[in-house]
Amino acid sequence: MPELRKDPVIGRWVIISTERGKRPSDLVVETPKSRGGFCPLCPGNEDKTPPEVFSFRAGDTQPDKPGWTLRVVPNKFPALVSEGDLNKRGDGIYDTMNGLGAHEVIIETPDHHATASTLTVPAFKNILLAYRQRMIELKKDRRLRYIAIFKNYGDVAGASLEHPHSQLIALPVVPKRPLEEMAGAQTYFNYRERCIYCDIIRQELLSTVRVVAENGDFLAIEPFAPRFPFETWILPQEHLSSFEHTPLEKFSALAELFSTVLKKINNALSFPPFNYMLHTAPLDKSENAYDHWHFEIIPRLTKVAGFEWGSGFYINPTPPEDAAHYLREA
Amino acid sequence: MPELRKDPVIGRWVIISTERGKRPSDLVVETPKSRGGFCPLCPGNEDKTPPEVFSFRAGDTQPDKPGWTLRVVPNKFPALVSEGDLNKRGDGIYDTMNGLGAHEVIIETPDHHATASTLTVPAFKNILLAYRQRMIELKKDRRLRYIAIFKNYGDVAGASLEHPHSQLIALPVVPKRPLEEMAGAQTYFNYRERCIYCDIIRQELLSTVRVVAENGDFLAIEPFAPRFPFETWILPQEHLSSFEHTPLEKFSALAELFSTVLKKINNALSFPPFNYMLHTAPLDKSENAYDHWHFEIIPRLTKVAGFEWGSGFYINPTPPEDAAHYLREA
Repeated sequence: MPELRKDPVIGRWVIISTERGKRPSDLVVETPKSRGGFCPLCPGNEDKTPPEVFSFRAGDTQPDKPGWTLRVVPNKFPALVSEGDLNKRGDGIYDTMNGLGAHEVIIETPDHHATASTLTVPAFKNILLAYRQRMIELKKDRRLRYIAIFKNYGDVAGASLEHPHSQLIALPVVPKRPLEEMAGAQTYFNYRERCIYCDIIRQELLSTVRVVAENGDFLAIEPFAPRFPFETWILPQEHLSSFEHTPLEKFSALAELFSTVLKKINNALSFPPFNYMLHTAPLDKSENAYDHWHFEIIPRLTKVAGFEWGSGFYINPTPPEDAAHYLREA
Repeated sequence: MPELRKDPVIGRWVIISTERGKRPSDLVVETPKSRGGFCPLCPGNEDKTPPEVFSFRAGDTQPDKPGWTLRVVPNKFPALVSEGDLNKRGDGIYDTMNGLGAHEVIIETPDHHATASTLTVPAFKNILLAYRQRMIELKKDRRLRYIAIFKNYGDVAGASLEHPHSQLIALPVVPKRPLEEMAGAQTYFNYRERCIYCDIIRQELLSTVRVVAENGDFLAIEPFAPRFPFETWILPQEHLSSFEHTPLEKFSALAELFSTVLKKINNALSFPPFNYMLHTAPLDKSENAYDHWHFEIIPRLTKVAGFEWGSGFYINPTPPEDAAHYLREA
């Protein structure tokens, strides 16, 4: 019998169609393949990107020259621009404003062929520290309301460049999804005076069936009502609403767990295309009792079709308990 | 300068990145190709599907035999099952219930190779009448709360069978997206005592820049804040909350406009993969002053990546005014 499950935060129902329960080997995975050609993100090509806004590099090297281990640069084809004012305006019943914000590329490593499975934990830690650093810097611009950080790996997942990178988009509005999460978490908090994510963490650590890995500071789970097979969340076990407020001394533990989880996904599913996205509190509500930052990792194994687009309702052929079991063993 | 636009019903912001404004010819279209092989939906193979629950067929022919022009059958691999009770239950902070409902396939034509461009208007009208008929029938089951009707065309859009078909999923809960639309439309109604969609229709007919086609009874527009290039909506110009309440005498006009719009999309974009989905009121609120049924058609031209999944925020490289212009001329 298929099961309907409801996400406790935003109230989204999903169908877990256990009758078609798929093992990792039943899922068709399109492992991203190298396309070759010129790479504007590789060392030596620093002049092919806009000037860097942040980097980790050897002390005796110059900005926009080789010698870096990680670089952050503005996107050459930005979705948003940084100059000008918002000019909020109406057009009859419609609302519009100028596309102000920032769009940056985090070049994660000089190694074009690195994957989550070959990157060292310290290298992974630097990526996470770069996210934090750029958030702290961009937050100073009071026009901005939300910072979205995400990674697309593989063509199927929307990556247009092969070189390992993630992206940051800073927005003058809070997007719909974080607003929904905040509203759901706030409703729960008003009722119970507890953070819903803290309650999820407590229940998952007790039942253990959906736990993928944990290390005392951080927890990786398959959520109770996942949209997709092998959807995986990583959360701090302590209550923290905003990613950029995470104490620096926790970043090694986070890098270790995040890296472990991505390696497990690569092992279980033969290097699937994937997306991950940081969910964190809006900039002007960055310390609150109900938001709880987390990463959502989505291997791209199923096609999203009309039903999902139209209804916001998802059919998932792999129960999260099965996925957690495979990932624990991977 | 890119523009941020807000959907007036559900409050979703999108980036219209006009600087990368794409003409139809700039968009990479993966036209679905025939894969050949055995087709369980073709005439002569009626025994390969579960027994039909509805059909249009020649008067002297038997159910589940050739002679039909349209057939509706239960999905052989249903996401939901019709037998049993809901057994709503909790598991700590989580909510779950049995996956009860219906999952049907509307086989639109006996012609395996038909497309929206070759189907006649009367054949298209029959498809729409079949939707209506199944909704009226399934509504009698009081366990059901919402009926989702959608079509996936092409592999990229999630179609696993090539033969022209659409699908129906009847659910014991109202999915998130219709709930959001209802909430947004109701808030607007409470404030202005007018249906927001009726206001949209009035404004679009006046400004005409986003109108694709109209015929007095129905209107096709590119919405003001579309998620995707060439996203197109079809709405009744008169206020109608539920599709199944549309007067029978309107179905010829609907079929004519819908067929025209799909032909225009095929002409402008060389037969792109697409999804469409009916948005209609929940079954237990099927006549109300604020919901307004409509179809949303989404050609699948861009890849949905981490940013969109995580944020519910979309970057659309084609302004709807440009898309409407191309489609009007197509």
